Amino acid sequence: MKPTEIKIACIGGGSRYWARVLINELALAPRLAGRLDLYDVNLDATHRNVQVAAAIFARPEARTRFKVRAVSRLDDALKGADFVMISIEPGEMEMRYADVVIPSRYGILQPCGDTAGPAGTMRALRTLPLYEGFVRSIEKHCPKAWVFNYSNPMTICTGGLHALFPQIKAFGCCHEVFASQHRIASLVADWFGVPEPPRQEIAIDLTGLNHFTWVTEVRWKGHDLIARLRREIAAPEFFRSRARDARRRKRLERWFEPSGMVGYDFLRRFDALGFAGDRHLVEFVPWYVRSEAELHRWGTTITPYSWRLRRANLVDHDPKHYARQPLRPTGEDVARIIESLVGHGPLITNINLPNRGQTPDLPLGHVVETNARFDQNSLSPIVAKALPPAACALVRRAADVQALVLRAALTRDVDLAFQAILADPLVSLTTDQAWSMFAAMLNHTRKMLPGYRLPSAS
Amino acid sequence: MKPTEIKIACIGGGSRYWARVLINELALAPRLAGRLDLYDVNLDATHRNVQVAAAIFARPEARTRFKVRAVSRLDDALKGADFVMISIEPGEMEMRYADVVIPSRYGILQPCGDTAGPAGTMRALRTLPLYEGFVRSIEKHCPKAWVFNYSNPMTICTGGLHALFPQIKAFGCCHEVFASQHRIASLVADWFGVPEPPRQEIAIDLTGLNHFTWVTEVRWKGHDLIARLRREIAAPEFFRSRARDARRRKRLERWFEPSGMVGYDFLRRFDALGFAGDRHLVEFVPWYVRSEAELHRWGTTITPYSWRLRRANLVDHDPKHYARQPLRPTGEDVARIIESLVGHGPLITNINLPNRGQTPDLPLGHVVETNARFDQNSLSPIVAKALPPAACALVRRAADVQALVLRAALTRDVDLAFQAILADPLVSLTTDQAWSMFAAMLNHTRKMLPGYRLPSAS
Amino acid sequence: MKPTEIKIACIGGGSRYWARVLINELALAPRLAGRLDLYDVNLDATHRNVQVAAAIFARPEARTRFKVRAVSRLDDALKGADFVMISIEPGEMEMRYADVVIPSRYGILQPCGDTAGPAGTMRALRTLPLYEGFVRSIEKHCPKAWVFNYSNPMTICTGGLHALFPQIKAFGCCHEVFASQHRIASLVADWFGVPEPPRQEIAIDLTGLNHFTWVTEVRWKGHDLIARLRREIAAPEFFRSRARDARRRKRLERWFEPSGMVGYDFLRRFDALGFAGDRHLVEFVPWYVRSEAELHRWGTTITPYSWRLRRANLVDHDPKHYARQPLRPTGEDVARIIESLVGHGPLITNINLPNRGQTPDLPLGHVVETNARFDQNSLSPIVAKALPPAACALVRRAADVQALVLRAALTRDVDLAFQAILADPLVSLTTDQAWSMFAAMLNHTRKMLPGYRLPSAS
Amino acid sequence: MKPTEIKIACIGGGSRYWARVLINELALAPRLAGRLDLYDVNLDATHRNVQVAAAIFARPEARTRFKVRAVSRLDDALKGADFVMISIEPGEMEMRYADVVIPSRYGILQPCGDTAGPAGTMRALRTLPLYEGFVRSIEKHCPKAWVFNYSNPMTICTGGLHALFPQIKAFGCCHEVFASQHRIASLVADWFGVPEPPRQEIAIDLTGLNHFTWVTEVRWKGHDLIARLRREIAAPEFFRSRARDARRRKRLERWFEPSGMVGYDFLRRFDALGFAGDRHLVEFVPWYVRSEAELHRWGTTITPYSWRLRRANLVDHDPKHYARQPLRPTGEDVARIIESLVGHGPLITNINLPNRGQTPDLPLGHVVETNARFDQNSLSPIVAKALPPAACALVRRAADVQALVLRAALTRDVDLAFQAILADPLVSLTTDQAWSMFAAMLNHTRKMLPGYRLPSAS
Repeated sequence: MKPTEIKIACIGGGSRYWARVLINELALAPRLAGRLDLYDVNLDATHRNVQVAAAIFARPEARTRFKVRAVSRLDDALKGADFVMISIEPGEMEMRYADVVIPSRYGILQPCGDTAGPAGTMRALRTLPLYEGFVRSIEKHCPKAWVFNYSNPMTICTGGLHALFPQIKAFGCCHEVFASQHRIASLVADWFGVPEPPRQEIAIDLTGLNHFTWVTEVRWKGHDLIARLRREIAAPEFFRSRARDARRRKRLERWFEPSGMVGYDFLRRFDALGFAGDRHLVEFVPWYVRSEAELHRWGTTITPYSWRLRRANLVDHDPKHYARQPLRPTGEDVARIIESLVGHGPLITNINLPNRGQTPDLPLGHVVETNARFDQNSLSPIVAKALPPAACALVRRAADVQALVLRAALTRDVDLAFQAILADPLVSLTTDQAWSMFAAMLNHTRKMLPGYRLPSAS
Repeated sequence: MKPTEIKIACIGGGSRYWARVLINELALAPRLAGRLDLYDVNLDATHRNVQVAAAIFARPEARTRFKVRAVSRLDDALKGADFVMISIEPGEMEMRYADVVIPSRYGILQPCGDTAGPAGTMRALRTLPLYEGFVRSIEKHCPKAWVFNYSNPMTICTGGLHALFPQIKAFGCCHEVFASQHRIASLVADWFGVPEPPRQEIAIDLTGLNHFTWVTEVRWKGHDLIARLRREIAAPEFFRSRARDARRRKRLERWFEPSGMVGYDFLRRFDALGFAGDRHLVEFVPWYVRSEAELHRWGTTITPYSWRLRRANLVDHDPKHYARQPLRPTGEDVARIIESLVGHGPLITNINLPNRGQTPDLPLGHVVETNARFDQNSLSPIVAKALPPAACALVRRAADVQALVLRAALTRDVDLAFQAILADPLVSLTTDQAWSMFAAMLNHTRKMLPGYRLPSAS
Repeated sequence: MKPTEIKIACIGGGSRYWARVLINELALAPRLAGRLDLYDVNLDATHRNVQVAAAIFARPEARTRFKVRAVSRLDDALKGADFVMISIEPGEMEMRYADVVIPSRYGILQPCGDTAGPAGTMRALRTLPLYEGFVRSIEKHCPKAWVFNYSNPMTICTGGLHALFPQIKAFGCCHEVFASQHRIASLVADWFGVPEPPRQEIAIDLTGLNHFTWVTEVRWKGHDLIARLRREIAAPEFFRSRARDARRRKRLERWFEPSGMVGYDFLRRFDALGFAGDRHLVEFVPWYVRSEAELHRWGTTITPYSWRLRRANLVDHDPKHYARQPLRPTGEDVARIIESLVGHGPLITNINLPNRGQTPDLPLGHVVETNARFDQNSLSPIVAKALPPAACALVRRAADVQALVLRAALTRDVDLAFQAILADPLVSLTTDQAWSMFAAMLNHTRKMLPGYRLPSAS
Repeated sequence: MKPTEIKIACIGGGSRYWARVLINELALAPRLAGRLDLYDVNLDATHRNVQVAAAIFARPEARTRFKVRAVSRLDDALKGADFVMISIEPGEMEMRYADVVIPSRYGILQPCGDTAGPAGTMRALRTLPLYEGFVRSIEKHCPKAWVFNYSNPMTICTGGLHALFPQIKAFGCCHEVFASQHRIASLVADWFGVPEPPRQEIAIDLTGLNHFTWVTEVRWKGHDLIARLRREIAAPEFFRSRARDARRRKRLERWFEPSGMVGYDFLRRFDALGFAGDRHLVEFVPWYVRSEAELHRWGTTITPYSWRLRRANLVDHDPKHYARQPLRPTGEDVARIIESLVGHGPLITNINLPNRGQTPDLPLGHVVETNARFDQNSLSPIVAKALPPAACALVRRAADVQALVLRAALTRDVDLAFQAILADPLVSLTTDQAWSMFAAMLNHTRKMLPGYRLPSAS
């Protein structure tokens, strides 16, 4: 069978991480072929990624070819695109000082700082103005393209796409749930004395919001793994302090290494399993981030701003590096989804999409994370089970804040954004402190905040 | 791999049609084995079906074995059941005189008379009291069993199961949509010059109610078949009279032969395709049943009561007959669903289930027909696209009437049942005529209406 | 206390009925004064009404004065208006041939033909284009004015105002409920041997739609009148034929004389009292209009088109006529509502307003009729009790059709309008007959249907 | 006109405050007469209040008479009652140590401690078991009585009444809004140079929850007072520290003296005016209770547990004391409401009632505070305007927590109650600290927690 010819536009095509994952996955997808246009504010970076692509497609493991080019004008990238990928950072790494360092001075600790909390709000305020440009161009040049969002804050970015162009065929993808499935798969290996099963075998009933995702059922080959987990976490020592692990992780700079203890604490306390990394889960509720010591107690660490800066400034690999690396699946679903959408059979995976009924716990229209079924030019969400009532209340509260932030960003309304900051579960400052913090955050990032009526710079 | 051992209870196990289909399908399902208990008010019939089963399982094509027995007490059949099948008639065939003949005297023509219209209401009133007995026993003896409903009126029977025992794992199955898929598959063969594809390849976005089912998308291998259908039906002669076909069908007693014209008229008028047999579709709206001539004009016939009686009284096959018949798939999904539920991989098919969000057009809780995904001990509905607004209004109206009938049957409220009769789109009688008709229907079937406060017999 | 100075604009200011009622009521409202601008497509008629106003305000009973003028441009009438009255006919009386005579040829009898049924749909299609002009001018010249709608179909006209200008302060007023209150008041006089109480003493819990209005509670001085009515209508002879009364009314051309029997039949059948004139109630359900004889059986008559034409062509009174007529209250609430809105104390009355929660039975946003509380520059609906379920189904069905018609009129979508015709409870034609009828109606009124893609004139 | 004879049962009839207010108000209501049965766990206290009643009814200002008696059995008090008043404390004053002192050790400051926060949850857990007894008896002895709830937490108590007996005619009354109206009335006097108008002239559009009540409109004689307030609070010095006032209040033990600053801060931050005492408002959000200093900054103080204990142990007045006190209106609406319900004309006031649509911002069924209209045997809520979105999010969050607490109390589910504690906006402890606090609270009050599975006493 001949591969299906498609055109993909990649916004944020200069990125070191996501654009290369995409190229990697395409190279391993024999049923796809065609063109990939890379667009980025950093044109040099896209040229470099064109070279990376050349190296990757030249690898012996590559099973197809795409024509990859760097494109300097967004419109050119989007013209005739069948698929659009968006994965951007809203401004350079120094912006994240505002997101995480300033709040930390007010006692607000955010291990990730890209989704919830004041950091998530700030990122949304910077990102949405950029998205408006993307959407205008998509509406003009490829209104029927499928649009994949990978940027954070996922819920608000994906919601923005739909708010700005209601007919858009956009959804958000995130691998956070995959990691949780892997964690469960490794327990399955332990519990049943089998090799670790592939994550797809860990069947989940998934609900909630991106990075504040929950599962009410986990099954593997007919085994009820939630029941099993309930027994495990009832053991007396299960919830002992994981501070030692956390300190080790901090020393070794392994910020992303999961412990999963917060997800289990959700199961203990709320009777549904938290199913994103603890680093994310803790940012939606006030209980785990009272201090760094408390975070460590759960095995979680705070990715330092200094480390982020350092990493951002590392010298990139020479593109030739990729010519030498064996080509292996990255674990991302992107090529599988494209294949399904062009007609190579159905696929069920988890995505982010406005609620059309799939999440009975949340308002219609709000972007939620659930399972969904892809098929030829078709995407149908699968209805999730209802959460237990308290978990539902927590998720609804988070969604309410996200809805405020989205509206604030779309209308450039700083007052409304501040109301969202006050309503954020991480914020228990006085209203004056909260304003002082928020004003400093705005001030630090003002060049990325076009159209907002900002407080005068201090 | 060894087959999975299960116990199935079949209520209505004496039936000539459904019980034998079930046995047939099980015989062709190598991954299943175990016990099948047949229960029926007619014990002789179950004994006969035990013999039929013996003949079928002895066929060379049979790939597994089930121990089949006739059970005289419902509780015995249900004890320990993993699966329960319900497919019953509410009373002998003479009851259907009330359903279809009496209304016909008032000008109300009902080609099927088992789902909607006054006939559907009457059947519901007779069926629900029987279901209460079933549910009490299921709750006691196999509360965790998966319950498959095959009885009509599907929506109300399945709704009754859930109303009577909210934790029940019940859903309704109907092959009506399969037939529509076959009809489309045969068009695909014509249009694309290919062999008729299997019905599963006809991908549909399905919504609405059982027997008043609609599709908003039909795709085959990436082709948009709804768009194609729109072009076909725009041809000048497409909607010409099919009276000659209908008269031929009537002469040959081919009542169930489909024409599909009403489904296409729905597409023309309401921009969504009717996706059940025309015989059923016409019973939910007043336009096609003004006269037998009008029904014929659309190629549809009325199954006569006399024919039904005659067929019911035909001598049954000798069980040995089945020993001689080659065993072939019947086209029903029942064994595939069971396999999926016991863990042999996911399955997507259409079923009837209380609305948990999958049908944005209808009230939560009302039993709707949509696609759903089965997996090990799991059933998740897939969210349907919204119907165009007028189609939605028609479906909502039908659902409102069903909800009245269900409530009337559960509370044995004859007045409320009469209100449902008045609200039925097929009824445009005066209130006095309507009452006169309904009182006659009640009177004719009074022995099957326990607990209702009936008007005194005339 | 000095009267409050206001400016009122009256669209349809040339009308013989409504404009004069308004003038009459203003003349009796000592707390109001100011200007009244009359605008009409018929400028002569407004000049005549200016003379009528002069005569009325000169009456000794008049308690205030308004400056009344005829205005030839809509914008001039609206500029600076505090209150806008809209009461128009969509085209001359000959248009109503399409509304009522053409459908009657298809067996569809419509005693009023201004709200529901094919006639209501046709009127809406003609009216909404005119309303778009009104709304554009209101938005420009008096966006904060309170807008009173008196045109039919009330629900759709009021809904159109809100759809076209969401910030509009518009509501609909209708005296139909007042007449039902008077009917009850006269029963109170009989039952309790007291003088007929004023209608305001008949306390009602009101719900539903304009002209398809229902009450679930009726009280007078602590007496539960619904309970009393239930007893009355249970009398054996209560529902005897009223054909003789109807024939007398027909002979005497007393089309608007009420019998109330249909409202009581609603109470008998659906356990809530129909609370508009039977002439209107019968147009929302198919049961009473099967034939003229059936209508007569309930005491209801059909206003003939010929009579309407004749009356429309009667010579108008000389304005001096009004100088001789004693000035008496008309029973309309308009002056009381204005007084309340300008701050002369609260008023509770029934009005039509988009559902903000006051009618739990109907979708949010749909225009419903309920009680509401007026106060200074404020209008708050009062929550109605839920209807019994079958009555609720009937009302929802009617509302669904209205929503289709409103959307069809706003988008000039003839196909959608036809879908509404098919979904109308009065229409049980075949789809071909229905189209033939509707095409004839469109054709007859095509000059009042700007922007619609009409079928070519036959 | 003769007064209407009624029977009132007062549960909590031994109270020094509420029972005497009731007697006082009845004595001033000439249109009412009849019997008042006082019931209390403290029978002595009811006997004393019978003597108080004798003194009050003997005052020359008294305009009617009630027969007042102390009743030792609840059933006797309720038998034949037309009205039931419930105003109780769940246990002696020492219980409040658990409500307020234990949380304060964890940094959770609660100025009132009777509605929200951990204290509100604890009170609800103690109160609902008592209410179950009341409801059983009401259902048996006076199912059609109007039930007035005055106990806190108001929302949960009133919600419990409806959950336990869905047909109950119960609502909650609270004077908190009256006090806010008085505060506005005094501003009116200042601003307009008039005598302070009666609170009823301050027209409000009221919404939200009891003690977390908001107004979106405030008008007096056509003046938009919200607009005026917006101008006032924009003055540079308006939000200066009120710590000096607070310290004075603390010194003088004037805990209930209002400053209103938090309500105004709500207006500044969220664009709707907080309309309960600041003491209550601050308990629903985390920002004002970070420290006693912060509370003082807003002019608010914390009522000390020691003062409450001291006051509870004060020697009561001799009943003869009341014979010497001039009888004056207390400002409560209770007699006006009763008069309206027995048919002496409509009354609009604010009450607490399950949401039937009156509060578009909150789930149906949740008890909300809005305006409502009383009339003879009738209570109809008035629809409130929607809150601005962030205020709505705050209120929804509070309602979600209340719903968890209500469910926890009805099902005696300590785990669920703890989930509510965690979800409370005042709680930003670690999960371990929160549990430690809650376990101590449960332990201190265990004798008032029948049927709960409590952690073993430490």
